[in-house]
Amino acid sequence: MKAVDLNCDLGESFGAYKLGRDEEILKHVTSANVACGFHAGDPATMRRTVRLALDNGVAIGAHPGLQDLIGFGRRDMDISPEEAYDLVVYQLGALWGFVRAEGASLQHVKAHGSLYNMASRSAGLAQAIAEAVYRVDPSLVLFGLAGGELIKAGERIGLRTASEVFSDRTYQNDGSLTSRRLPDSVITDDDRALKQVIRMVSEGKVRTQQDADIDIRADTICVHGDGVRAVEFAGQIRSSLGEAGIAVQAVGATLAGKP
Amino acid sequence: MKAVDLNCDLGESFGAYKLGRDEEILKHVTSANVACGFHAGDPATMRRTVRLALDNGVAIGAHPGLQDLIGFGRRDMDISPEEAYDLVVYQLGALWGFVRAEGASLQHVKAHGSLYNMASRSAGLAQAIAEAVYRVDPSLVLFGLAGGELIKAGERIGLRTASEVFSDRTYQNDGSLTSRRLPDSVITDDDRALKQVIRMVSEGKVRTQQDADIDIRADTICVHGDGVRAVEFAGQIRSSLGEAGIAVQAVGATLAGKP
Amino acid sequence: MKAVDLNCDLGESFGAYKLGRDEEILKHVTSANVACGFHAGDPATMRRTVRLALDNGVAIGAHPGLQDLIGFGRRDMDISPEEAYDLVVYQLGALWGFVRAEGASLQHVKAHGSLYNMASRSAGLAQAIAEAVYRVDPSLVLFGLAGGELIKAGERIGLRTASEVFSDRTYQNDGSLTSRRLPDSVITDDDRALKQVIRMVSEGKVRTQQDADIDIRADTICVHGDGVRAVEFAGQIRSSLGEAGIAVQAVGATLAGKP
Amino acid sequence: MKAVDLNCDLGESFGAYKLGRDEEILKHVTSANVACGFHAGDPATMRRTVRLALDNGVAIGAHPGLQDLIGFGRRDMDISPEEAYDLVVYQLGALWGFVRAEGASLQHVKAHGSLYNMASRSAGLAQAIAEAVYRVDPSLVLFGLAGGELIKAGERIGLRTASEVFSDRTYQNDGSLTSRRLPDSVITDDDRALKQVIRMVSEGKVRTQQDADIDIRADTICVHGDGVRAVEFAGQIRSSLGEAGIAVQAVGATLAGKP
Repeated sequence: MKAVDLNCDLGESFGAYKLGRDEEILKHVTSANVACGFHAGDPATMRRTVRLALDNGVAIGAHPGLQDLIGFGRRDMDISPEEAYDLVVYQLGALWGFVRAEGASLQHVKAHGSLYNMASRSAGLAQAIAEAVYRVDPSLVLFGLAGGELIKAGERIGLRTASEVFSDRTYQNDGSLTSRRLPDSVITDDDRALKQVIRMVSEGKVRTQQDADIDIRADTICVHGDGVRAVEFAGQIRSSLGEAGIAVQAVGATLAGKP
Repeated sequence: MKAVDLNCDLGESFGAYKLGRDEEILKHVTSANVACGFHAGDPATMRRTVRLALDNGVAIGAHPGLQDLIGFGRRDMDISPEEAYDLVVYQLGALWGFVRAEGASLQHVKAHGSLYNMASRSAGLAQAIAEAVYRVDPSLVLFGLAGGELIKAGERIGLRTASEVFSDRTYQNDGSLTSRRLPDSVITDDDRALKQVIRMVSEGKVRTQQDADIDIRADTICVHGDGVRAVEFAGQIRSSLGEAGIAVQAVGATLAGKP
Repeated sequence: MKAVDLNCDLGESFGAYKLGRDEEILKHVTSANVACGFHAGDPATMRRTVRLALDNGVAIGAHPGLQDLIGFGRRDMDISPEEAYDLVVYQLGALWGFVRAEGASLQHVKAHGSLYNMASRSAGLAQAIAEAVYRVDPSLVLFGLAGGELIKAGERIGLRTASEVFSDRTYQNDGSLTSRRLPDSVITDDDRALKQVIRMVSEGKVRTQQDADIDIRADTICVHGDGVRAVEFAGQIRSSLGEAGIAVQAVGATLAGKP
Repeated sequence: MKAVDLNCDLGESFGAYKLGRDEEILKHVTSANVACGFHAGDPATMRRTVRLALDNGVAIGAHPGLQDLIGFGRRDMDISPEEAYDLVVYQLGALWGFVRAEGASLQHVKAHGSLYNMASRSAGLAQAIAEAVYRVDPSLVLFGLAGGELIKAGERIGLRTASEVFSDRTYQNDGSLTSRRLPDSVITDDDRALKQVIRMVSEGKVRTQQDADIDIRADTICVHGDGVRAVEFAGQIRSSLGEAGIAVQAVGATLAGKP
């Protein structure tokens, strides 16, 4: 039986500022990417989010970002691979502290926002991130854009990787996401989004914006948790996967079952 | 044979800002308290400091502080025990990341500046810090002011503790340090400072400012690394200890040898 | 005819984080205390808030706070008077930039959270804040707790001051607010709150928790803008004041009409 | 008689961290670019630096940078023109507060590091910065790379501008600085540097790396203040300018004398 993971960004509140519907989305996903204090999150939020994920039986991953709270880690910064290494080790370690304090363990690492996007394109940044994760704990799963540099770097260094796909974004022939600056980059029709994601998981194919069929690997699906509709749609993805005979489970468990 | 530890704050640089004579002081001390990014330090500095300590065979500890870079963690803040717990778990985890990435392990935790001072007096803060350390790793050694609340909280929870003494500060009859706001709080005569520290280690006694002899436990001596003279004085302490027949070694090793 | 000012904290969003119902509360108040980036607010939020206040004809004041974004400026910090001076000049200047860029001018300064509370009790901090405001612009109005040190320091240095009262807090015989740690510190009954505030403005009296009548000066009333009910209650205060024959207008205008 | 300005970055210390030889370099320069707290500087440092510049009769300018303390504002960030506008208004206002508190006035604005470099190439960023300066105070002088977008934007909007040249950097035929990634980008021979800068001021010409003579406007020369040798070299530039019959004075005074 085919299986896939559903992941979501969590723990993005900061001090007096609340963001996201963490309690609700945790009912639907199998992996939580927990913000680590640089682009979002603070120590108290990290503690609460880790406990909440454990209470819901959801696997926990570190979600390190650029040190840009005001820009939510979404503004590209010209950092060196060494700086990328350092900020991943720091944030991964910080979250590990909270996970360890609960007697639990980490499943994965998913870079956030601009760090994710830059590293998906840059072999140097991807290599630095993969090295950071590997050196801290080689049993962690590295998340990355399907077909992107993070996945390649993770495999090269010997990490287990999870290729991530998006239900609500269109793809180009080279496997990259259509830039948000271009028309039709986001899929707003729920039916179309659901069909795309089911096909990616069950057939390993996606129809590109140029109307070609390309191969795509889908280990984990990114869902959003920052609106009523987003939470509902996550539930719909989960139901549709079930109806299509696809198991939804944390990627660490799926990978562990592989030879 | 008696043994004592020499500890020093390290890794207090930040970005373009350099602070401390880390390379030099590492020749004299046996335990390094590495800043974790809140009151000082940044991810790159942490990586470099961990490697430098390992190259010098010096045991590594986390040195978590208040989130007050502009005040260097030296301004008291009215934080709750829960907030103290959270910021220790976060910073301890972050440093653990860099230590783990080098295949090494942590020896101890020493709170910094105001966090150390407040927790030495407050049972609630001390309990929260001890709990944070214990839950992340119960094998760590908790540093604290000899006779203060941190040591009591550490022992209560089951951590190994290291009672810290100061060569260059005078003591009150209740074992506390003379406030820096009072006269004669700092010992500026090197000979007097050396004699005080040797006696604390060899006899377990210190002469207070009120001219009484009180008991004091001296597992580790705090030395400074932020000036030419400070580094030289650390060398003098080490020599004097040797002449007095006292071994200087990391506290983790000393405690490990105890029944 | 008697007149009073209604003030509210605004512009407390930060980056991706939204806080407060600024558009709605601006329909009810006459003075806006705009966060300046230390405890809340960021440059973009400041620009937008200044424009929004101007669009609504609401007078603008700087709302400087402690440099503690994670604690929203609500945790007491042991800062020196000189540090208080510096952080008020900095934040007041920063907001002045946005006000000036719109061709407008500032009316007042109200310290935020712990800075306000500490300075209401400490003559040293109050003097430093009054000096900061006076030196940057002696025509500004200094807000402070009625009967507190900020008002005294402001008058001493030659600033116009606005004594602030609270509708939803109980008072002690010495004119201070009942600590939030004590029972009955907050008035949850709207009718009682409205009656208290009307009496403070019209009679200059308040009934204390110890059941005594004390004199109180009410130049400006603090209202909240962070919930549907808070906004509605601000509207009720405004209506009740009108029914009691009290004009509601920005304090700068009221003071300008005084000899 | 020809005249030129010597400018230097100052006030780059932060909290416990000291940077630069501000007292010494102030003996040589005529304009001080004061850091405003984003890439360097803090409120106390700004107050001290403003007073120090005034004591030395040196004109004061704001030196706003990217919000990247850890990278000292030297890492390019993908900010929008609106974000550039906001961060210049904020930082310019903050420094204005300290200048106004001393009863003095600001002369100029010079963007720092990556913000300067990005705006020298990007018409959009340059326009936003020029607009920020103009709206806060149209009498300010805008500094920018000679021939770059900042100068063009400043002139377009109606600001007085100061074209900046570098003694220790080589130029390309298009008037841009040779990238630091290329060989021979920095002039390490003091004689060659002095000759280049004298010629730029007296003849308005510079010999490019491609061995061509191009026109260049030199209103202000950038000197460094972060080393013994840098301070000495600033003194040499000043002497050489004197010997060449060129007056050294703050650019505001020079421009004020122009029709």
